[in-house]
Amino acid sequence: MTSTPRWPDIDGIAYGGDYTPEQWSRETWREDVTLMREAGVNLVSIGIFAWALLETAEGEFDFTWMDEVVELLHENGIRVDMGTPTASPPAWFFAAHPDARVVTRDGVTLGFGARGMASHSAPAYREAAVRITTELAKRYGNHPAVVLWHVHNEYGVPVGEDYSPHAVREWRLWLQERYGSLDALNAAWGTAFWGQHYTAWEHVGAPAAAPSTVNPAQRLDYARFTDHQLRACFIAERDAIRAHSDRPITTNFMANQHNGCDLWAWAREVDIVSDDHYLWAADEEGEIGLAIAADLTRSVGGGKPWILMEHSTSAVNWQPRNVAKRPGEMARNSLAHLGRGADAILFFQWRASRSGAEKFHSAMLPHAGTESRVWREVVDLGAKLDRLEEVRGSRVHADVAILWDFESFWAQDLEWRPSEDVGHDERIRAYYEQLWRDGITVDFALPGQDLSGYKLVIAPAQYMLSLADADNLNRYVHDGGTLVVSFFSAVVDEHDAVHAGGFGTPLEPALGVRVEEHLPLREGTTGDISWNGQTLRADVWQEDLVLVGAEVRATYVDGPAAGEAAVTRNQHGAGAGWYVSTRPDAAGLAAIMTNIYADAGLAPAEAPAGVEIVRRRRDDDVEFVVAINHTTDAVTLSLEGHDLLTQTEVTGRLSLAGGDVAVIRSRRTAPQEQV
Amino acid sequence: MTSTPRWPDIDGIAYGGDYTPEQWSRETWREDVTLMREAGVNLVSIGIFAWALLETAEGEFDFTWMDEVVELLHENGIRVDMGTPTASPPAWFFAAHPDARVVTRDGVTLGFGARGMASHSAPAYREAAVRITTELAKRYGNHPAVVLWHVHNEYGVPVGEDYSPHAVREWRLWLQERYGSLDALNAAWGTAFWGQHYTAWEHVGAPAAAPSTVNPAQRLDYARFTDHQLRACFIAERDAIRAHSDRPITTNFMANQHNGCDLWAWAREVDIVSDDHYLWAADEEGEIGLAIAADLTRSVGGGKPWILMEHSTSAVNWQPRNVAKRPGEMARNSLAHLGRGADAILFFQWRASRSGAEKFHSAMLPHAGTESRVWREVVDLGAKLDRLEEVRGSRVHADVAILWDFESFWAQDLEWRPSEDVGHDERIRAYYEQLWRDGITVDFALPGQDLSGYKLVIAPAQYMLSLADADNLNRYVHDGGTLVVSFFSAVVDEHDAVHAGGFGTPLEPALGVRVEEHLPLREGTTGDISWNGQTLRADVWQEDLVLVGAEVRATYVDGPAAGEAAVTRNQHGAGAGWYVSTRPDAAGLAAIMTNIYADAGLAPAEAPAGVEIVRRRRDDDVEFVVAINHTTDAVTLSLEGHDLLTQTEVTGRLSLAGGDVAVIRSRRTAPQEQV
Amino acid sequence: MTSTPRWPDIDGIAYGGDYTPEQWSRETWREDVTLMREAGVNLVSIGIFAWALLETAEGEFDFTWMDEVVELLHENGIRVDMGTPTASPPAWFFAAHPDARVVTRDGVTLGFGARGMASHSAPAYREAAVRITTELAKRYGNHPAVVLWHVHNEYGVPVGEDYSPHAVREWRLWLQERYGSLDALNAAWGTAFWGQHYTAWEHVGAPAAAPSTVNPAQRLDYARFTDHQLRACFIAERDAIRAHSDRPITTNFMANQHNGCDLWAWAREVDIVSDDHYLWAADEEGEIGLAIAADLTRSVGGGKPWILMEHSTSAVNWQPRNVAKRPGEMARNSLAHLGRGADAILFFQWRASRSGAEKFHSAMLPHAGTESRVWREVVDLGAKLDRLEEVRGSRVHADVAILWDFESFWAQDLEWRPSEDVGHDERIRAYYEQLWRDGITVDFALPGQDLSGYKLVIAPAQYMLSLADADNLNRYVHDGGTLVVSFFSAVVDEHDAVHAGGFGTPLEPALGVRVEEHLPLREGTTGDISWNGQTLRADVWQEDLVLVGAEVRATYVDGPAAGEAAVTRNQHGAGAGWYVSTRPDAAGLAAIMTNIYADAGLAPAEAPAGVEIVRRRRDDDVEFVVAINHTTDAVTLSLEGHDLLTQTEVTGRLSLAGGDVAVIRSRRTAPQEQV
Repeated sequence: MTSTPRWPDIDGIAYGGDYTPEQWSRETWREDVTLMREAGVNLVSIGIFAWALLETAEGEFDFTWMDEVVELLHENGIRVDMGTPTASPPAWFFAAHPDARVVTRDGVTLGFGARGMASHSAPAYREAAVRITTELAKRYGNHPAVVLWHVHNEYGVPVGEDYSPHAVREWRLWLQERYGSLDALNAAWGTAFWGQHYTAWEHVGAPAAAPSTVNPAQRLDYARFTDHQLRACFIAERDAIRAHSDRPITTNFMANQHNGCDLWAWAREVDIVSDDHYLWAADEEGEIGLAIAADLTRSVGGGKPWILMEHSTSAVNWQPRNVAKRPGEMARNSLAHLGRGADAILFFQWRASRSGAEKFHSAMLPHAGTESRVWREVVDLGAKLDRLEEVRGSRVHADVAILWDFESFWAQDLEWRPSEDVGHDERIRAYYEQLWRDGITVDFALPGQDLSGYKLVIAPAQYMLSLADADNLNRYVHDGGTLVVSFFSAVVDEHDAVHAGGFGTPLEPALGVRVEEHLPLREGTTGDISWNGQTLRADVWQEDLVLVGAEVRATYVDGPAAGEAAVTRNQHGAGAGWYVSTRPDAAGLAAIMTNIYADAGLAPAEAPAGVEIVRRRRDDDVEFVVAINHTTDAVTLSLEGHDLLTQTEVTGRLSLAGGDVAVIRSRRTAPQEQV
Repeated sequence: MTSTPRWPDIDGIAYGGDYTPEQWSRETWREDVTLMREAGVNLVSIGIFAWALLETAEGEFDFTWMDEVVELLHENGIRVDMGTPTASPPAWFFAAHPDARVVTRDGVTLGFGARGMASHSAPAYREAAVRITTELAKRYGNHPAVVLWHVHNEYGVPVGEDYSPHAVREWRLWLQERYGSLDALNAAWGTAFWGQHYTAWEHVGAPAAAPSTVNPAQRLDYARFTDHQLRACFIAERDAIRAHSDRPITTNFMANQHNGCDLWAWAREVDIVSDDHYLWAADEEGEIGLAIAADLTRSVGGGKPWILMEHSTSAVNWQPRNVAKRPGEMARNSLAHLGRGADAILFFQWRASRSGAEKFHSAMLPHAGTESRVWREVVDLGAKLDRLEEVRGSRVHADVAILWDFESFWAQDLEWRPSEDVGHDERIRAYYEQLWRDGITVDFALPGQDLSGYKLVIAPAQYMLSLADADNLNRYVHDGGTLVVSFFSAVVDEHDAVHAGGFGTPLEPALGVRVEEHLPLREGTTGDISWNGQTLRADVWQEDLVLVGAEVRATYVDGPAAGEAAVTRNQHGAGAGWYVSTRPDAAGLAAIMTNIYADAGLAPAEAPAGVEIVRRRRDDDVEFVVAINHTTDAVTLSLEGHDLLTQTEVTGRLSLAGGDVAVIRSRRTAPQEQV
Repeated sequence: MTSTPRWPDIDGIAYGGDYTPEQWSRETWREDVTLMREAGVNLVSIGIFAWALLETAEGEFDFTWMDEVVELLHENGIRVDMGTPTASPPAWFFAAHPDARVVTRDGVTLGFGARGMASHSAPAYREAAVRITTELAKRYGNHPAVVLWHVHNEYGVPVGEDYSPHAVREWRLWLQERYGSLDALNAAWGTAFWGQHYTAWEHVGAPAAAPSTVNPAQRLDYARFTDHQLRACFIAERDAIRAHSDRPITTNFMANQHNGCDLWAWAREVDIVSDDHYLWAADEEGEIGLAIAADLTRSVGGGKPWILMEHSTSAVNWQPRNVAKRPGEMARNSLAHLGRGADAILFFQWRASRSGAEKFHSAMLPHAGTESRVWREVVDLGAKLDRLEEVRGSRVHADVAILWDFESFWAQDLEWRPSEDVGHDERIRAYYEQLWRDGITVDFALPGQDLSGYKLVIAPAQYMLSLADADNLNRYVHDGGTLVVSFFSAVVDEHDAVHAGGFGTPLEPALGVRVEEHLPLREGTTGDISWNGQTLRADVWQEDLVLVGAEVRATYVDGPAAGEAAVTRNQHGAGAGWYVSTRPDAAGLAAIMTNIYADAGLAPAEAPAGVEIVRRRRDDDVEFVVAINHTTDAVTLSLEGHDLLTQTEVTGRLSLAGGDVAVIRSRRTAPQEQV
C-alpha cells in the first residue's frame, strides 16, 4: 500500500459525524446539508448500518438512494467517509445462514434484532462482507466526495468471542499454524496439569463452559485467536476496497474502552488510526479517561495525527446514568483530543434518531432541534476548529511512557488470580492520573519496543512479560533509563506460565528484587508504608521481597509484611529500577512519584490544579499549547504567543475563564521553562 | 354475554379461600366443612391445580372425587368457585407434547416439575385446555353449588413470555394482522436504525438474546403479543364454559404485583374482576401497596364491586424474608380491600399444605391447627363480615385519577433509558402515597379515557403517550381540569419513537413547557429545589426546560440545572397543567401537592396520621365509612352513624383502638364536612 | 473386605503431598526426591490427574514413566498413595463420548478443558473408569512402595449434579428402587400440590429449570440420587482395585467445605477416611472452621485416626482474595489437625505448578524454591512430625455432640424458605465457636445414632427430622441427656413435608414446646431477649411458642413476639431439653451456654483466650495434649508431662510463645482437673 495517501483530502481540521440519511425523508436531507454548512461540518460518515438497504436480497443491490446522498453532500462541499456496513448484516443474511450466528461461551446462539453481528469465522459472512464492500468500492471508490473509508464499526463490540462450530474449526487451524505440533501446544498450555494432554488436533475445543476453570493458556490463546479473526475480517474488507480505491482506509477503535483488540497490531493494518471515545459518566473526572484514550490512540498510531471518529455532544444512552455534558464541556473534550493529536473531531451522530436502541444518545442536532444549547455549541465548535487549521499535522512529544500491553491484560483478566482487587485498568489510571495532575505528557508503549527516547518508563500492570521483553526493559535501565514497576508484574511468560525461579525474576537485573510470595490483603484492610518519615496509606497488596541489590526506600508499617521492604530502588548500569510492591493511595503515589521524577530528570508543570496543558510541535519549532480549564474559576497562566481562538496576542500571562480553552501558537522552549 | 349474572349467587360478603381436597383424606374433608361453617366460610375455589387428577390420561376423565367434594360442600351450604386447572397441565401432557414447553429469551426450555405452565401458543395446549374446561363446564356448569368460574390462575405468572417456535409462528401472524405490510412494520419499528430492515415476514424473529440491545419497538410489541396470547387462552376457556354454563366467569389478576397483563383489556373480557394481593414484607407500610392494588382492581373493573380472590392470613413463602402478619393485621387488610370495593374476601388457602413449594405459606387453617391465633382471627373475621352484608354493591367515589398505563410501563422498562434510577412503580407509589396520607381517594385511569369527572389527574410516569392520548389530556386541562405531570413523560409515541420536536412536546398546550434535555444525576447525588422560600430535597433527575407559557413555581438550587425552572404551572383554558421535572423527597412532594390540591379544589382529610378512611356509597346516599387504625394507639375520629361491627351508634366521636377497624353506616355529607 | 489393613504401611506420622512428576523433567524428579528426603516426606500421592498420559488412546496404556517414578520413590524410601485419575478423563474420551458430558440444570453442556469431570451416570464413563483403575491395580497393587489407594479426587467438586439424559435414565431406576410404586412416589413428593401427579415412570424428569420453584421433595431426592451415583462410581473403582490389591483404599472428602456428599455414608465405604481442608481466607479465625472440618472428618470415621490428604502451605488460588499464611501458621494448622485425630499431614501439592489453573496455589516447594520461608517451614514441620510418632493411633474424646445431617442441609437449602437469613452452616459455626472458645471438644453426630455417651447434644440446624430420629432424641433426653435445639428445627419429615400438627411437634416430649408460627424479622432489625436480668441482642428470627410443659428462661423484649417466651427449658425424664427460638449474638449465646453447661455437668476449660487445647488418648491412659497459641503473645498454661517437640519436661507450667505449638505427653487426669 505504498502509494496510499495518508490523510483524507479535507481542508483544515475535519469536523462532522455519523450521518444516517436512511432514517429520514429527502426533505430532511436538504435541511441536513444546510445545517451542516451552518455548523462548519466538512466530513460525514455514511452507510455504516445501511447493508439491508443497499443489498436488498443476496446479490441484489440498490445504490440509488446512496448515490443521491453522496451527490447532495458533494454539491454542498461536504466530504464523505464511506462506511462498509458489515457490522450489521441484514435479516435475510441470517435467515439464509443461521450457522453464521455468534454462539456464547454458555452455548446461547445470538440472533438478529440488535446489531446483527455475525460469526467472524463463518465463511458465508466473510464472503458476504467482501461482496458488499467490493460493490461499494467499485461504485464510490473514486468519487470526488469520498475521501476516506470506514470499515465496519468498532470491531469486537458488542461481541467478539464466538464459540460457534465455524469458530472452533478456524481455531484449530490457527493453533496448528501457531504451534506446528501437538507437543508444542501441550507444552505451551501446560496440559499435564489437570490431565488435559491432547493426542489429536480434532480433540482441541474452544474454551467454552466447563466444570471448572478452563486452562488459562488456552483461554489466552482464544483471546489472541479472536483478535486475529476480527482483524482478518478487517483485512479482507480493506483489501477489497484497495482493489478499487486509493483513498485511505480506517476502522474506528475503542481505545481505553474495549480491550479485546490488540490496537498495536491493528494500527499496523490501517492507513489512519481513528478512535471512538465516550466519557464514563460515573467518573467525575472523565477528562482523565479521555486523555488516556487519546494518548493511547496516538501511541498505537506511532504518534501520527489521528481521527476522533465518534464522541458525543452530550449524554450517551447505554450507561446506568447517562449524565449530560454541561455547557462548554463538549468543546473542552474536543480540544483535549485535538491537543493530544487528533486532526478530526467527529461525533456519533449528526441527527438524533427517533427510533431504535440509541434514541437517547445525544447528537449534533438534538431532538430539541436548533433551538437548543447543544446546537449552539456545535456551531460554535465548528467556528473554533476553523481557526485551528494550522495545528494540523503537528505532533505531540512525551518524555514518559506507560506500558500498555493488551495480551498481558487478557492474561491477567482470567480466573483464579491472587486477588480480585488487583486490576490493570485501575493501576494504569492511578499512575497516569498522577502524571496528568503533574502536567507531564505520556505516551503508551509496548514492553518490547524501543524505549530509549523516554526518560521514564512505568509498568503499572505488566503481569505477563516474556523474557525477550524483560531483556528490553533491563537494557533500557542499564542504558540510563528510569523504570518504575508496580506489583504483580513479570509474573508469567507469554503462555501464562510462572517464570522459572519465581515471580518477577526476569526483571531482577533492573529492579534488584525478587518476589518470594504475594501477600494480598483482606477486603477493606490497609497496610501502610513508611516513606521518608511519612506514613503513606496503602491497601490491596503486599509482598515478601527478597533484595538482590536494591536499596529499601519505603517499608511496611503494618500488615503481613510489616517491617519489610515496600518500595525499592536499584541502580543498574546508568539507570535506576524502582519497584512499588503495594497500592498507595493518591497522596502516597504523589509523594513517591515526586522522588522518581527527580531521579528521571523530570519536572512537573506548574499549572494550577484542574488545568490541563498539552502541546503539539511542528518541525519548525512552532508549538501549539492547548490549555483547558476544567475548573469553574478563572486562572492565570504563564504563556506567550498568539491565541488562535481569540486571534489576540498573549504576552506572558493568559487569563483563562472557568471552563474555557485556549490554543496558543508559540515558539518551542526548553522543558524547564515550560508552564 | 348479555344475560350473564354479574355477581355470584351468595348471601352477604363472600368469605373463604382456595380449597385443595385432593391433598387430603376424605376424613379431613369432613373436618374441613365443619370448620368452614365454624368460620363462616361461604365460598371456596376448587380444582385450580387438579388437572392431573381429573384427566388422568389424554381424554380419560375421572370426576368421581370432585363430584363428592362438590356434593359435600353443597350439603353444607358452601358455594363453589370452580377453577379450570389449565395453569398446570399434567406430566403426561408434557411427555406427549414436549414442543408445548415454554422457552426463555436465552433459549432455555422450561420443563415440568413446578407449576407446569405451557406455551401460550402451542396448539396442543390450547386444545387440551379447552377440552378439560369443556368437560368441567358440562359436568358442573349448572350445579346449584357452583356460582362462579375461576379460569386458570394468575395469567402471566410465573412465566408469560415464550420464545418457543410456536410462539414465533404466532407472533408473525399477529404482526401481519397488526401492521398489514412490512413497510408499516419497518416504519413502526424504525428498522433503518442499526440496519434491521425486513424484506420478508419469515425473517422476523422473536426479540430473543442478541449481541446487543434488541430493537425496543420490537420488544414492546412482543410484550403486547404476549399479553394478547395469554388473553386469547383465557377467551378460549371462557367461551368453552359459556357454551355450557351461565355462571359468571373470572380469572384472578395480580394488580400492582405483576405488570405483564394489560388489566384494562382483560377486565373487558371477564364477568367480574377478581384480584390476588400479597403484602410486600420488606415494605413497612404494606397497607399503601395494598391500597394501590385495590384501587387499581376497582378502576380496571369500572368501579364495580370485585372479588379479592387471594390474600394471606399471615406470612407468604416466596419473599426473601416472609414476615408474619401481627394480630389484627389480617382483618385490617381484609377490610381495607372491602372499603376499596371488594365484596368478597378470600384467601390462598383454606388449609396449609404439608408438601410442595408453598408449605410455608400461611392459610386459614394453619399447620398449628385450630389452637392458634390465626384460626381465631379467621373465625372472628368471618363473624365481622357477616355483619357487613348491607355494604355489598355500594361504590367508591374518587375525585383524583392517577394514570396507569401498562403499555407505557412495558416501554419504559426496556434497556438503555437515560437513568436506571427512574421507575414507574416508584413514581406512582410516591404520588399515591402522598394522597393516601392526605386521605384523598384515588382512581387509576388510562390517559385516553374520559377524565372529565376528576378534579385532579396525575401522570407520575407516562413515558409513552400517543398523540391522541395527549390531545385527551390537553382537552381535559383546557376544560378545567388540573393535571400534574412528572418528569420523563410524553417522551415517546406508541412505537417507542421520540416525539417529533423533542421530549414532552405533545403536552406543550397543557403544560406550557418543552424539555430541551434530560439531566440525570449521578448516583447518590441530590439537586435541591427552591419552593416558596423553602429548600426541598430532590434527586435522580433534572431537566433543561424551555418555558412556552408556563410560570416557574420552583427553581433548582444546585445540580446541572441550577438556577433554572424545576416545577412549573401553566394556565391552559379553564384548567392548569403542572410539571414537576425532578424527584422531590416525601416532604417536598407534600409541600408541592398542598398547592396543587388548592389549585384543584381538593381538601386533604383531617384524620390522624396512620388512620386510613375510605368510603363506599349507595345510590340512596347511604355511605359506609371504613376507618382503619394502622397505629398502635387509640385515636378519636369525628364520625356519626351506626357502627356495623359493634352494632352501636356513633354520635360525632368514635374512639378507635390501636389496630382496630370500624365500619360506620352514615348519611353522605358534602366533601368539606368529611373527616 | 475383612482382611484389609486399616492403616497404610508407613512409619510414624505420614508427611508429604500430591506429586505430579508428569509436569516436570526427569532431572527435576531427582531433585524432588532429594528435597523430599530433606523435608522428611514419607508419602506422596501420584497419578491423580494422569489419565491422559497413562491411557493415551482408548485401551492403549503407557505406564513406563509411572513405573520409573514409583521406582525412584521406592528407592528413596518414599511411600506411594496411588491415585486413580478418574476425576479428569482424557480429551479423547470426551471426543469419543460427547454424551458423557455433564449437563447443568439450565441445560448447558459442560465441555473439556478444565477438570474434565464426566457424567456420573454415563455407562461409557463408568466403564472407562473401571478399566484404567483395573490396569493400575494390576500393575501397582502389590508394589512394595504403594501403601494406599486414592480413588478419584474430591467427589462432587467442582460439579456433582448432572441433568444429562444418562442421569435422567438412572434417576428413574433409582426412584423405582426407592419407592417401588408411583403411588408411593406421588405420596412422598406431595404431587397433589400444583398438579404434579405422575401416572408413568417415564414421565418423571430431573428437577431441571422450570417456570417456577420445582417440587422440593423431588429436588431433595435428586440430591440423594446425586450422592448415590457419585458413591456408586467410587464403589465401582474400589471394587476394581480390591480385586488386585490388598492396600487400604480412600477417597479425599471435603468436610465443612462441600456438603454435596453424605460423608456418613461415604465413610462406611472407605478403608480410611481422608479429608482435604482449606482455610477460608476472609475468615479471620479460620482455625475454627478448620477445627469443625477436622472434628467432622474424625466423627464420620467413627473416631479412628484419619488422613489430612490436602491442605496448603500458604495461600490458595481460587478465593476472591487468597491470603498467604503467616510464619508458623502452617504448623499450627497441621498440628491442630493432628490434635483432632489426623495421623497423616499431606499437602496439595509438593511442587508449585508453573502452568494451569492453580499455578498461584502454594506448595511445599514454592515457585521461589528452597530459598524461601515456606520451604524452611516445610522442613521444620517434617522434623516436628518426626518427633510425634508415638501420638499415632491415639483417639480424641468428646462429651458434646453437635448434630450434622447432610440430608437436612440439602432440604433446608431449597428455595422458598421463611427467611434467607437462616443458614445451617452459620448456626453450626455459632454454637461450635462458643464451645471452641470454651475449650470443649466436640464430636459431630447424626440425630438417629446412639448419643448416650454424650453429656450434651446440640441441634443448631435440624430443619428436617424424621419421627424415628425425633424418638431417638426424645429418648436421649428422657434417659438423662441434655439437648439444645435451635429454631427452625424438626420442621419437616424426610420428604420435606411439614410434620402433622405443626412445626417442631416431634420434639414436643423433649422440649415441652410447640411452634405456632415462625416470625422472621425484617432485614437489619433486631429483637432482643431478656435473660436473667440481662438484655441479650438477637436477630433474624422469632417464634410464637406454645408452652406444653417447658419453663421460660428468656423472653422477647421487642419484635413481633415481644413479651413471649424466647428460650425455654423442659425437664423430661432424667434429662433436660432446651429450646432457643432466636439467633443471639456471640455474647448472648455465651451467656446462654454457660447455663446449659452447668445443666449438662460440663465445665469450660480455663485456657487463655486464643489458645486451643485438644487431647488425644491412648488406651493406656497416656494423653497427648496439643496446645496451640493462636495469639501473638506468650501465654502460660498449667500442664505437666513431656514436651515431645522440645524434648523437655514440663512441670506444672508451660510457657508457650506467641504462635507456637506444644505437644505434651501426660497421664490422663479427671476432667475437672484439666486445663
